[in-house]
Amino acid sequence: MRYLITGFSGFVSNHFVEHISQVDPDYEIWGVDIREPSRQYVAQNKLLHFCKMSLLDRNKLLSLCKEIRPERVIHLASYSSVAYSWEHPVECFLNNTNIFLNLVETLRELAIACRILSVGSSEGYGQVSSGEIPLYENKCPNPINPYAVARVSQENISKVYSLGYGLPIICTRSFNHIGPDQPDAYVVSSFVRQAVEVSLGRRKVISCGKLEIVRDFIDVRDVVRAYHIILEKGNAGEVYNVCSGRGTLLEELLLMICRLTGINPAWIEEKSLIRPTENPIIVGDLSKLTKLGFVPLFILEDSLKDLLSRWQKELIKSSM
Amino acid sequence: MRYLITGFSGFVSNHFVEHISQVDPDYEIWGVDIREPSRQYVAQNKLLHFCKMSLLDRNKLLSLCKEIRPERVIHLASYSSVAYSWEHPVECFLNNTNIFLNLVETLRELAIACRILSVGSSEGYGQVSSGEIPLYENKCPNPINPYAVARVSQENISKVYSLGYGLPIICTRSFNHIGPDQPDAYVVSSFVRQAVEVSLGRRKVISCGKLEIVRDFIDVRDVVRAYHIILEKGNAGEVYNVCSGRGTLLEELLLMICRLTGINPAWIEEKSLIRPTENPIIVGDLSKLTKLGFVPLFILEDSLKDLLSRWQKELIKSSM
Repeated sequence: MRYLITGFSGFVSNHFVEHISQVDPDYEIWGVDIREPSRQYVAQNKLLHFCKMSLLDRNKLLSLCKEIRPERVIHLASYSSVAYSWEHPVECFLNNTNIFLNLVETLRELAIACRILSVGSSEGYGQVSSGEIPLYENKCPNPINPYAVARVSQENISKVYSLGYGLPIICTRSFNHIGPDQPDAYVVSSFVRQAVEVSLGRRKVISCGKLEIVRDFIDVRDVVRAYHIILEKGNAGEVYNVCSGRGTLLEELLLMICRLTGINPAWIEEKSLIRPTENPIIVGDLSKLTKLGFVPLFILEDSLKDLLSRWQKELIKSSM
Repeated sequence: MRYLITGFSGFVSNHFVEHISQVDPDYEIWGVDIREPSRQYVAQNKLLHFCKMSLLDRNKLLSLCKEIRPERVIHLASYSSVAYSWEHPVECFLNNTNIFLNLVETLRELAIACRILSVGSSEGYGQVSSGEIPLYENKCPNPINPYAVARVSQENISKVYSLGYGLPIICTRSFNHIGPDQPDAYVVSSFVRQAVEVSLGRRKVISCGKLEIVRDFIDVRDVVRAYHIILEKGNAGEVYNVCSGRGTLLEELLLMICRLTGINPAWIEEKSLIRPTENPIIVGDLSKLTKLGFVPLFILEDSLKDLLSRWQKELIKSSM
């Protein structure tokens, strides 16, 4: 199968490529990104091709798609920071909504018969009351930050391209990821890195944002398996939650990390890490995804252990 | 008051200017549009200024807003044809959503304290069942064509800019307009023009689309009064239906036009005028707007009579 992956240089893409290489013996992958891939596996693998480009460049996108005529498109590209979106709302909109619109319009123009996965975010749900938990896909989106607005727009574009033009696009609303190589810009990875630093005697306290919030964490290796299942079996024009279905209080998560690391540190709330508006609880309903045959393989403790061993390796190595 | 009107050269803008010139003794208006204004009143009125520009040109927009620092912004600019949006979805999106985003971002960047009217469309409601009629503003949008997607995105941007950045933006979902100088690209004006042609012996039958649909028509002179009230009294970040609250079957409307014209012609359904998907009934609820003090002044028959006398003048003149 010929795959086109946007956002190829990101954390999720690495895992998707790994999964595909295991389950599809005839895979060939073209990746595009505005950044070079962080790993050097492209050079080592003849079935991986990389093209550095912005999806805002429609001419370049058109010639690439014309050349490769993908059979599957996985759209992972996104400016996905909520904080950044408040600072640069236009840039965020262009690099979420407009890039996606360019992508699907290019595929439509070229009449390429491919299935398309439009990766979105649970941020689209926006402000929710605790009575609305777990969040079902039929809930009305209520985006409350620029990033979320861009994601909801992307989803609406997907539906119209799917139902109006007949492009089989399937959407996800993906919840919080967790995984061994997650950058520490994300909360869980940052907690684990700090915990390892405490265990190594390099810091005394852990800096955190608000801990009294509940989030739904799913391991990135489960995420990519879910993406593959949705891409192959999902109904065109529909939306699927990609979540664990379980809520975890951030404070409990931090305690679990400390227990696994064998430390018992203090923590302080950093004002800079506290968002102006924050939902107290975000948990998705998993049943629509389960009906496609998806079963999560990782429990939170496994994910944390893998993340812990990665940071231990990285930080001990850096001190040698 | 200093007004900035986008989409200045359109049909609605003319009426808005006329209304403002009657109710605001201290008005001064700057209009922008990609087309020259159709009427020559700009040259004759020292309080009207016109700048030909695209709102996609952020630099030009920035210098204009810097110069005039508007106190009120009325955003009428739009590529508002649903049919065109199916043909040119990217262009439609850019010229609805991105132009609006540029506009509000410019006002935010310049920290201009102005109230902003974001004119939207009842198309945003999308597919509705008859049990959901009349349509209330709290109904979840369900856009089913590219134009509607762009309008819903605009509305979501409005909410985030209003609630997140504190720009007082108030949104409308405007229903079908009718009015004396409406272009005949719109269904009612087209019916009236054809009816006058029949009465003058220039044609035998009236071409029409599907007549078994119910729409909510509001006179453009009521529309602009509603816009002014919403702009001054509406709650920032909220949405207001601009409608009559009454549904009219298109077939009855055509019969009314024929009666007023004194003719009894045949009509034929033209395939080219039938849309792929069409809601059987679209009627808005007027009560939220009414609570702001709005009362419609025109009944449908008045609007039709005015439209009729305009086409009679125009077509009789053209034959002399």
